[in-house]
Amino acid sequence: MKKAVCLLSGGLDSATSLACARAAGFETYALSFDYGQRHRIELDAAARVAAHLGAAVHKTIRIDLRAFGGSALTADIAVPKGRRTEQMCAGIPVTYVPARNTVFLSIALAWAEVLGAADLFLGVNAVDYSGYPDCRPDYIAAFETMANLATRAGVEGAAHFKIHTPLIDLSKAGIIRLGLSLGVDYSLTHSCYDPADGLACGQCDSCLLRLAGFAAAGVPDPLRYAAQSPGAVKG
Amino acid sequence: MKKAVCLLSGGLDSATSLACARAAGFETYALSFDYGQRHRIELDAAARVAAHLGAAVHKTIRIDLRAFGGSALTADIAVPKGRRTEQMCAGIPVTYVPARNTVFLSIALAWAEVLGAADLFLGVNAVDYSGYPDCRPDYIAAFETMANLATRAGVEGAAHFKIHTPLIDLSKAGIIRLGLSLGVDYSLTHSCYDPADGLACGQCDSCLLRLAGFAAAGVPDPLRYAAQSPGAVKG
Repeated sequence: MKKAVCLLSGGLDSATSLACARAAGFETYALSFDYGQRHRIELDAAARVAAHLGAAVHKTIRIDLRAFGGSALTADIAVPKGRRTEQMCAGIPVTYVPARNTVFLSIALAWAEVLGAADLFLGVNAVDYSGYPDCRPDYIAAFETMANLATRAGVEGAAHFKIHTPLIDLSKAGIIRLGLSLGVDYSLTHSCYDPADGLACGQCDSCLLRLAGFAAAGVPDPLRYAAQSPGAVKG
Repeated sequence: MKKAVCLLSGGLDSATSLACARAAGFETYALSFDYGQRHRIELDAAARVAAHLGAAVHKTIRIDLRAFGGSALTADIAVPKGRRTEQMCAGIPVTYVPARNTVFLSIALAWAEVLGAADLFLGVNAVDYSGYPDCRPDYIAAFETMANLATRAGVEGAAHFKIHTPLIDLSKAGIIRLGLSLGVDYSLTHSCYDPADGLACGQCDSCLLRLAGFAAAGVPDPLRYAAQSPGAVKG
Protein backbone atom coordinates (compact mmCIF):
# COMPACT_ATOMS: atom_id res chain seq x y z
CA MET A 1 0.00 0.00 0.00
CA LYS A 2 1.45 3.38 -0.96
CA LYS A 3 2.11 5.82 1.86
CA ALA A 4 1.15 9.49 1.91
CA VAL A 5 2.07 12.20 4.40
CA CYS A 6 -1.03 14.31 5.11
CA LEU A 7 -0.85 17.71 6.78
CA LEU A 8 -3.58 17.78 9.41
CA SER A 9 -4.36 20.94 11.34
CA GLY A 10 -7.57 19.59 12.83
CA GLY A 11 -9.71 21.90 10.73
CA LEU A 12 -12.40 21.16 8.21
CA ASP A 13 -10.16 21.42 5.13
CA SER A 14 -7.31 19.22 6.31
CA ALA A 15 -9.76 16.58 7.59
CA THR A 16 -11.34 16.47 4.14
CA SER A 17 -7.93 16.32 2.45
CA LEU A 18 -6.96 13.37 4.70
CA ALA A 19 -10.22 11.62 3.76
CA CYS A 20 -9.34 12.15 0.08
CA ALA A 21 -5.93 10.53 0.58
CA ARG A 22 -7.60 7.52 2.19
CA ALA A 23 -10.22 7.35 -0.58
CA ALA A 24 -7.40 7.40 -3.14
CA GLY A 25 -6.02 4.23 -1.55
CA PHE A 26 -3.09 5.61 0.43
CA GLU A 27 -1.94 4.48 3.85
CA THR A 28 -1.94 7.85 5.59
CA TYR A 29 0.69 9.40 7.87
CA ALA A 30 -0.90 12.44 9.48
CA LEU A 31 1.32 15.35 10.53
CA SER A 32 0.34 18.21 12.84
CA PHE A 33 2.31 21.14 14.22
CA ASP A 34 2.41 22.66 17.64
CA TYR A 35 3.82 25.97 16.38
CA GLY A 36 2.74 28.41 19.06
CA GLN A 37 -0.67 28.97 17.48
CA ARG A 38 -3.28 30.87 19.44
CA HIS A 39 -5.80 28.12 18.66
CA ARG A 40 -3.66 25.29 20.01
CA ILE A 41 -6.88 23.44 20.86
CA GLU A 42 -6.96 22.42 17.18
CA LEU A 43 -4.33 19.80 18.04
CA ASP A 44 -6.92 17.85 20.06
CA ALA A 45 -9.16 17.94 17.01
CA ALA A 46 -6.28 16.71 14.83
CA ALA A 47 -5.80 13.68 17.10
CA ARG A 48 -9.52 12.90 16.99
CA VAL A 49 -9.67 13.26 13.20
CA ALA A 50 -6.55 11.12 12.63
CA ALA A 51 -8.10 8.30 14.69
CA HIS A 52 -11.51 8.71 13.05
CA LEU A 53 -10.07 8.55 9.53
CA GLY A 54 -7.76 5.63 10.25
CA ALA A 55 -4.34 7.26 9.90
CA ALA A 56 -1.60 4.66 10.29
CA VAL A 57 0.47 7.11 12.35
CA HIS A 58 -0.18 10.64 13.65
CA LYS A 59 2.79 12.78 14.66
CA THR A 60 2.76 16.26 16.14
CA ILE A 61 5.98 18.23 15.70
CA ARG A 62 6.84 21.23 17.85
CA ILE A 63 8.27 24.25 16.10
CA ASP A 64 8.11 27.61 17.81
CA LEU A 65 7.03 30.12 15.15
CA ARG A 66 6.08 32.43 18.04
CA ALA A 67 9.85 33.04 18.31
CA PHE A 68 9.40 35.20 15.20
CA GLY A 69 5.78 36.39 15.57
CA GLY A 70 4.46 38.48 12.70
CA SER A 71 0.90 37.09 12.68
CA ALA A 72 -2.34 37.38 14.64
CA LEU A 73 -2.00 33.62 15.18
CA THR A 74 1.52 33.71 16.64
CA ALA A 75 1.83 37.12 18.31
CA ASP A 76 -0.23 39.53 20.41
CA ILE A 77 -2.11 40.89 17.42
CA ALA A 78 -5.93 40.84 17.56
CA VAL A 79 -7.80 38.34 15.37
CA PRO A 80 -10.25 40.29 13.15
CA LYS A 81 -13.91 39.64 13.94
CA GLY A 82 -17.19 40.12 12.12
CA ARG A 83 -15.63 40.90 8.73
CA ARG A 84 -17.68 40.71 5.56
CA THR A 85 -16.58 38.67 2.53
CA GLU A 86 -15.26 41.70 0.64
CA GLN A 87 -13.10 42.65 3.63
CA MET A 88 -11.71 39.12 3.89
CA CYS A 89 -10.79 39.13 0.23
CA ALA A 90 -9.08 42.54 0.22
CA GLY A 91 -5.42 41.53 0.50
CA ILE A 92 -3.49 39.10 2.66
CA PRO A 93 -5.02 38.97 6.17
CA VAL A 94 -3.22 39.58 9.47
CA THR A 95 -3.77 35.90 10.28
CA TYR A 96 -1.23 35.04 7.57
CA VAL A 97 1.71 33.29 9.28
CA PRO A 98 4.95 34.07 7.42
CA ALA A 99 6.08 31.09 5.35
CA ARG A 100 3.93 28.69 7.39
CA ASN A 101 3.00 26.25 4.65
CA THR A 102 6.62 26.23 3.44
CA VAL A 103 7.83 25.29 6.91
CA PHE A 104 5.12 22.63 7.27
CA LEU A 105 5.60 21.14 3.80
CA SER A 106 9.39 21.04 4.31
CA ILE A 107 9.00 19.01 7.47
CA ALA A 108 6.42 16.80 5.75
CA LEU A 109 8.94 16.28 2.96
CA ALA A 110 11.56 15.17 5.48
CA TRP A 111 9.16 12.60 6.93
CA ALA A 112 8.06 11.43 3.47
CA GLU A 113 11.64 10.82 2.43
CA VAL A 114 12.34 8.74 5.54
CA LEU A 115 9.10 6.75 5.03
CA GLY A 116 9.82 6.13 1.37
CA ALA A 117 6.64 8.05 0.48
CA ALA A 118 6.40 10.29 -2.59
CA ASP A 119 2.94 11.75 -1.93
CA LEU A 120 1.98 14.67 0.30
CA PHE A 121 -1.57 15.91 0.86
CA LEU A 122 -2.42 19.50 1.74
CA GLY A 123 -5.92 20.95 2.23
CA VAL A 124 -5.42 24.33 0.54
CA ASN A 125 -8.34 25.59 -1.51
CA ALA A 126 -9.80 28.42 -3.54
CA VAL A 127 -11.19 30.23 -0.49
CA ASP A 128 -7.74 30.31 1.12
CA TYR A 129 -5.78 31.27 -1.92
CA SER A 130 -7.69 34.45 -2.45
CA GLY A 131 -5.93 35.53 0.75
CA TYR A 132 -2.85 33.44 1.49
CA PRO A 133 0.05 33.32 -1.00
CA ASP A 134 1.22 29.91 0.18
CA CYS A 135 -2.08 28.30 -0.82
CA ARG A 136 -1.91 29.17 -4.53
CA PRO A 137 -1.36 26.68 -7.35
CA ASP A 138 1.81 28.37 -8.66
CA TYR A 139 3.35 28.20 -5.19
CA ILE A 140 2.47 24.50 -4.86
CA ALA A 141 4.05 23.78 -8.26
CA ALA A 142 7.23 25.64 -7.27
CA PHE A 143 7.46 23.72 -4.00
CA GLU A 144 7.11 20.44 -5.87
CA THR A 145 9.94 21.36 -8.26
CA MET A 146 12.16 22.36 -5.34
CA ALA A 147 11.31 19.18 -3.39
CA ASN A 148 12.52 16.96 -6.22
CA LEU A 149 15.89 18.75 -6.23
CA ALA A 150 16.17 18.89 -2.43
CA THR A 151 16.15 15.22 -1.58
CA ARG A 152 18.15 12.07 -2.11
CA ALA A 153 14.96 10.29 -3.24
CA GLY A 154 14.12 13.04 -5.73
CA VAL A 155 17.62 13.41 -7.16
CA GLU A 156 18.32 9.69 -7.40
CA GLY A 157 14.90 9.05 -8.96
CA ALA A 158 13.60 6.75 -6.22
CA ALA A 159 10.62 9.06 -5.77
CA HIS A 160 8.97 11.85 -7.68
CA PHE A 161 7.40 13.98 -4.99
CA LYS A 162 3.89 15.16 -5.63
CA ILE A 163 1.93 17.67 -3.53
CA HIS A 164 -1.73 16.65 -3.79
CA THR A 165 -4.24 19.45 -3.24
CA PRO A 166 -7.60 17.72 -3.75
CA LEU A 167 -9.57 20.76 -2.57
CA ILE A 168 -7.74 23.39 -4.60
CA ASP A 169 -10.69 24.37 -6.82
CA LEU A 170 -13.51 23.83 -4.34
CA SER A 171 -15.64 26.34 -2.44
CA LYS A 172 -16.17 25.75 1.28
CA ALA A 173 -19.60 24.25 0.54
CA GLY A 174 -18.04 21.98 -2.07
CA ILE A 175 -15.43 20.81 0.44
CA ILE A 176 -18.13 20.01 3.00
CA ARG A 177 -20.19 18.06 0.48
CA LEU A 178 -17.11 16.11 -0.61
CA GLY A 179 -16.15 15.36 3.00
CA LEU A 180 -19.64 14.18 3.92
CA SER A 181 -19.63 11.86 0.90
CA LEU A 182 -16.35 10.39 2.21
CA GLY A 183 -17.72 9.90 5.73
CA VAL A 184 -15.97 12.79 7.52
CA ASP A 185 -17.51 13.58 10.90
CA TYR A 186 -17.13 17.37 11.07
CA SER A 187 -18.15 17.46 14.73
CA LEU A 188 -14.56 16.28 15.43
CA THR A 189 -12.92 19.23 13.64
CA HIS A 190 -11.96 22.69 14.89
CA SER A 191 -11.71 25.80 12.69
CA CYS A 192 -11.79 28.85 14.99
CA TYR A 193 -8.73 31.13 15.18
CA ASP A 194 -9.71 32.50 18.59
CA PRO A 195 -11.54 29.93 20.71
CA ALA A 196 -12.45 30.54 24.36
CA ASP A 197 -13.46 27.89 26.90
CA GLY A 198 -13.32 25.26 24.14
CA LEU A 199 -15.95 27.03 22.04
CA ALA A 200 -15.49 28.48 18.57
CA CYS A 201 -16.00 32.25 18.53
CA GLY A 202 -18.35 32.34 15.53
CA GLN A 203 -16.91 35.72 14.50
CA CYS A 204 -13.40 35.29 13.10
CA ASP A 205 -12.84 34.84 9.35
CA SER A 206 -12.39 31.09 9.77
CA CYS A 207 -15.68 30.64 11.71
CA LEU A 208 -17.59 32.90 9.33
CA LEU A 209 -16.35 31.05 6.25
CA ARG A 210 -17.15 27.72 7.87
CA LEU A 211 -20.68 28.78 8.88
CA ALA A 212 -21.35 30.19 5.42
CA GLY A 213 -20.04 26.97 3.88
CA PHE A 214 -22.40 24.78 5.90
CA ALA A 215 -25.30 27.15 5.11
CA ALA A 216 -24.53 26.99 1.39
CA ALA A 217 -24.18 23.20 1.52
CA GLY A 218 -27.60 23.06 3.19
CA VAL A 219 -26.43 21.04 6.19
CA PRO A 220 -26.14 22.10 9.82
CA ASP A 221 -22.65 22.69 11.28
CA PRO A 222 -22.35 20.17 14.13
CA LEU A 223 -20.04 22.50 16.12
CA ARG A 224 -21.13 24.62 19.08
CA TYR A 225 -20.35 28.33 18.89
CA ALA A 226 -20.00 30.95 21.62
CA ALA A 227 -21.85 33.40 19.41
CA GLN A 228 -23.08 33.36 15.87
CA SER A 229 -22.66 36.62 14.00
CA PRO A 230 -25.89 38.12 12.70
CA GLY A 231 -23.76 39.44 9.86
CA ALA A 232 -22.28 36.05 8.99
CA VAL A 233 -21.14 35.93 5.37
CA LYS A 234 -23.20 34.05 2.83
CA GLY A 235 -21.14 31.40 1.01
CA MET B 1 21.41 48.94 7.25
CA LYS B 2 19.99 45.98 5.36
CA LYS B 3 19.28 42.86 7.36
CA ALA B 4 20.23 39.32 6.41
CA VAL B 5 19.27 36.02 8.03
CA CYS B 6 22.34 33.79 8.20
CA LEU B 7 22.15 30.06 8.85
CA LEU B 8 24.80 29.25 11.43
CA SER B 9 25.54 25.66 12.42
CA GLY B 10 28.68 26.53 14.31
CA GLY B 11 30.88 24.90 11.69
CA LEU B 12 33.66 26.30 9.56
CA ASP B 13 31.50 26.92 6.48
CA SER B 14 28.61 28.72 8.15
CA ALA B 15 31.01 30.89 10.18
CA THR B 16 32.70 31.95 6.95
CA SER B 17 29.34 32.58 5.28
CA LEU B 18 28.29 34.78 8.22
CA ALA B 19 31.56 36.72 7.90
CA CYS B 20 30.79 37.23 4.19
CA ALA B 21 27.37 38.67 5.03
CA ARG B 22 28.97 41.09 7.45
CA ALA B 23 31.65 42.03 4.93
CA ALA B 24 28.91 42.72 2.37
CA GLY B 25 27.48 45.31 4.75
CA PHE B 26 24.50 43.43 6.20
CA GLU B 27 23.27 43.57 9.76
CA THR B 28 23.24 39.85 10.51
CA TYR B 29 20.55 37.74 12.18
CA ALA B 30 22.09 34.37 12.92
CA LEU B 31 19.87 31.29 13.06
CA SER B 32 20.78 27.90 14.50
CA PHE B 33 18.81 24.71 14.95
CA ASP B 34 18.62 22.29 17.81
CA TYR B 35 17.26 19.46 15.65
CA GLY B 36 18.27 16.37 17.56
CA GLN B 37 21.71 16.26 15.98
CA ARG B 38 24.28 13.88 17.39
CA HIS B 39 26.81 16.74 17.47
CA ARG B 40 24.61 19.10 19.50
CA ILE B 41 27.81 20.60 20.92
CA GLU B 42 27.99 22.61 17.67
CA LEU B 43 25.33 24.92 19.16
CA ASP B 44 27.86 26.20 21.71
CA ALA B 45 30.18 26.96 18.82
CA ALA B 46 27.35 28.75 16.99
CA ALA B 47 26.79 31.03 19.99
CA ARG B 48 30.53 31.80 20.22
CA VAL B 49 30.78 32.51 16.48
CA ALA B 50 27.66 34.73 16.45
CA ALA B 51 29.13 36.86 19.25
CA HIS B 52 32.60 36.91 17.66
CA LEU B 53 31.25 38.05 14.28
CA GLY B 54 28.91 40.67 15.74
CA ALA B 55 25.51 39.20 14.85
CA ALA B 56 22.74 41.61 15.87
CA VAL B 57 20.63 38.68 17.11
CA HIS B 58 21.27 34.95 17.40
CA LYS B 59 18.28 32.61 17.69
CA THR B 60 18.27 28.86 18.14
CA ILE B 61 15.07 27.10 17.08
CA ARG B 62 14.19 23.60 18.28
CA ILE B 63 12.80 21.21 15.73
CA ASP B 64 12.94 17.51 16.44
CA LEU B 65 14.10 15.84 13.22
CA ARG B 66 14.98 12.81 15.37
CA ALA B 67 11.20 12.17 15.36
CA PHE B 68 11.76 10.96 11.78
CA GLY B 69 15.34 9.67 11.91
CA GLY B 70 16.76 8.47 8.61
CA SER B 71 20.31 9.79 9.06
CA ALA B 72 23.49 8.96 10.96
CA LEU B 73 23.14 12.42 12.52
CA THR B 74 19.58 11.93 13.79
CA ALA B 75 19.22 8.20 14.44
CA ASP B 76 21.24 5.30 15.83
CA ILE B 77 23.22 4.82 12.64
CA ALA B 78 27.02 4.83 12.88
CA VAL B 79 28.93 7.83 11.54
CA PRO B 80 31.44 6.57 8.94
CA LYS B 81 35.08 6.95 9.98
CA GLY B 82 38.40 7.00 8.17
CA ARG B 83 36.94 7.20 4.65
CA ARG B 84 39.06 8.27 1.72
CA THR B 85 38.04 11.07 -0.67
CA GLU B 86 36.81 8.70 -3.35
CA GLN B 87 34.57 6.95 -0.81
CA MET B 88 33.15 10.27 0.40
CA CYS B 89 32.32 11.29 -3.15
CA ALA B 90 30.63 8.01 -4.17
CA GLY B 91 26.97 8.90 -3.69
CA ILE B 92 24.98 10.65 -1.00
CA PRO B 93 26.42 9.78 2.45
CA VAL B 94 24.52 8.28 5.38
CA THR B 95 25.04 11.59 7.21
CA TYR B 96 22.57 13.18 4.78
CA VAL B 97 19.58 14.39 6.85
CA PRO B 98 16.39 14.18 4.74
CA ALA B 99 15.30 17.63 3.55
CA ARG B 100 17.39 19.35 6.23
CA ASN B 101 18.39 22.45 4.30
CA THR B 102 14.82 22.83 3.06
CA VAL B 103 13.51 22.78 6.63
CA PHE B 104 16.20 25.21 7.78
CA LEU B 105 15.80 27.62 4.85
CA SER B 106 12.00 27.59 5.28
CA ILE B 107 12.29 28.65 8.89
CA ALA B 108 14.91 31.25 7.92
CA LEU B 109 12.46 32.53 5.31
CA ALA B 110 9.77 32.91 7.97
CA TRP B 111 12.12 34.96 10.14
CA ALA B 112 13.30 37.05 7.19
CA GLU B 113 9.74 37.93 6.25
CA VAL B 114 8.96 39.06 9.81
CA LEU B 115 12.20 41.10 9.96
CA GLY B 116 11.58 42.72 6.58
CA ALA B 117 14.80 41.11 5.30
CA ALA B 118 15.13 39.81 1.74
CA ASP B 119 18.57 38.23 2.06
CA LEU B 120 19.49 34.80 3.40
CA PHE B 121 23.03 33.43 3.68
CA LEU B 122 23.86 29.73 3.55
CA GLY B 123 27.34 28.20 3.72
CA VAL B 124 26.89 25.42 1.15
CA ASN B 125 29.86 24.74 -1.09
CA ALA B 126 31.39 22.60 -3.79
CA VAL B 127 32.70 20.02 -1.33
CA ASP B 128 29.21 19.49 0.10
CA TYR B 129 27.33 19.44 -3.12
CA SER B 130 29.28 16.53 -4.49
CA GLY B 131 27.44 14.60 -1.79
CA TYR B 132 24.33 16.40 -0.56
CA PRO B 133 21.51 17.23 -3.01
CA ASP B 134 20.31 20.19 -0.95
CA CYS B 135 23.61 22.00 -1.37
CA ARG B 136 23.56 22.19 -5.19
CA PRO B 137 23.06 25.37 -7.21
CA ASP B 138 19.93 24.12 -9.02
CA TYR B 139 18.31 23.33 -5.68
CA ILE B 140 19.17 26.79 -4.32
CA ALA B 141 17.67 28.43 -7.41
CA ALA B 142 14.47 26.38 -7.07
CA PHE B 143 14.16 27.31 -3.40
CA GLU B 144 14.54 30.99 -4.27
CA THR B 145 11.77 30.78 -6.90
CA MET B 146 9.48 29.02 -4.43
CA ALA B 147 10.25 31.52 -1.65
CA ASN B 148 9.13 34.44 -3.78
CA LEU B 149 5.77 32.74 -4.38
CA ALA B 150 5.38 31.55 -0.77
CA THR B 151 5.36 34.83 1.06
CA ARG B 152 3.37 38.03 1.38
CA ALA B 153 6.56 40.03 0.87
CA GLY B 154 7.49 38.07 -2.25
CA VAL B 155 4.04 38.13 -3.82
CA GLU B 156 3.34 41.77 -3.06
CA GLY B 157 6.80 42.79 -4.28
CA ALA B 158 8.01 44.26 -0.98
CA ALA B 159 10.98 41.90 -1.11
CA HIS B 160 12.70 39.74 -3.66
CA PHE B 161 14.20 36.95 -1.63
CA LYS B 162 17.75 35.99 -2.48
CA ILE B 163 19.64 32.98 -1.12
CA HIS B 164 23.30 34.01 -0.99
CA THR B 165 25.80 31.16 -1.17
CA PRO B 166 29.15 32.95 -1.07
CA LEU B 167 31.11 29.69 -0.72
CA ILE B 168 29.36 27.73 -3.45
CA ASP B 169 32.35 27.40 -5.78
CA LEU B 170 35.10 27.23 -3.19
CA SER B 171 37.17 24.29 -2.01
CA LYS B 172 37.62 23.81 1.73
CA ALA B 173 41.05 25.43 1.53
CA GLY B 174 39.55 28.36 -0.38
CA ILE B 175 36.89 28.80 2.29
CA ILE B 176 39.51 28.82 5.04
CA ARG B 177 41.65 31.40 3.21
CA LEU B 178 38.57 33.59 2.63
CA GLY B 179 37.50 33.32 6.27
CA LEU B 180 40.98 34.16 7.58
CA SER B 181 41.03 37.24 5.33
CA LEU B 182 37.71 38.29 6.92
CA GLY B 183 38.98 37.77 10.47
CA VAL B 184 37.22 34.51 11.33
CA ASP B 185 38.66 32.80 14.40
CA TYR B 186 38.29 29.13 13.50
CA SER B 187 39.21 28.03 17.00
CA LEU B 188 35.63 28.95 17.91
CA THR B 189 34.03 26.64 15.33
CA HIS B 190 33.04 22.98 15.54
CA SER B 191 32.87 20.61 12.57
CA CYS B 192 32.89 17.03 13.92
CA TYR B 193 29.84 14.80 13.40
CA ASP B 194 30.72 12.55 16.30
CA PRO B 195 32.47 14.42 19.10
CA ALA B 196 33.31 12.81 22.44
CA ASP B 197 34.26 14.65 25.65
CA GLY B 198 34.18 17.93 23.74
CA LEU B 199 36.86 16.80 21.31
CA ALA B 200 36.49 16.38 17.56
CA CYS B 201 37.02 12.76 16.48
CA GLY B 202 39.43 13.51 13.64
CA GLN B 203 38.06 10.55 11.67
CA CYS B 204 34.57 11.38 10.35
CA ASP B 205 34.12 12.86 6.86
CA SER B 206 33.64 16.34 8.31
CA CYS B 207 36.85 16.21 10.38
CA LEU B 208 38.84 14.69 7.52
CA LEU B 209 37.68 17.34 5.04
CA ARG B 210 38.44 20.08 7.54
CA LEU B 211 41.92 18.77 8.31
CA ALA B 212 42.66 18.38 4.61
CA GLY B 213 41.41 21.92 3.99
CA PHE B 214 43.72 23.43 6.60
CA ALA B 215 46.62 21.36 5.27
CA ALA B 216 45.95 22.56 1.71
CA ALA B 217 45.59 26.16 2.89
CA GLY B 218 48.97 25.83 4.62
CA VAL B 219 47.74 26.92 8.03
CA PRO B 220 47.33 24.90 11.22
CA ASP B 221 43.82 23.95 12.36
CA PRO B 222 43.43 25.56 15.80
CA LEU B 223 41.08 22.77 17.00
CA ARG B 224 42.10 19.90 19.26
CA TYR B 225 41.33 16.42 18.02
CA ALA B 226 40.93 13.14 19.91
CA ALA B 227 42.82 11.39 17.12
CA GLN B 228 44.17 12.41 13.79
CA SER B 229 43.79 9.84 11.08
CA PRO B 230 47.03 8.69 9.51
CA GLY B 231 44.99 8.27 6.32
CA ALA B 232 43.58 11.79 6.38
CA VAL B 233 42.54 12.90 2.92
CA LYS B 234 44.66 15.31 0.99
CA GLY B 235 42.69 18.43 -0.01
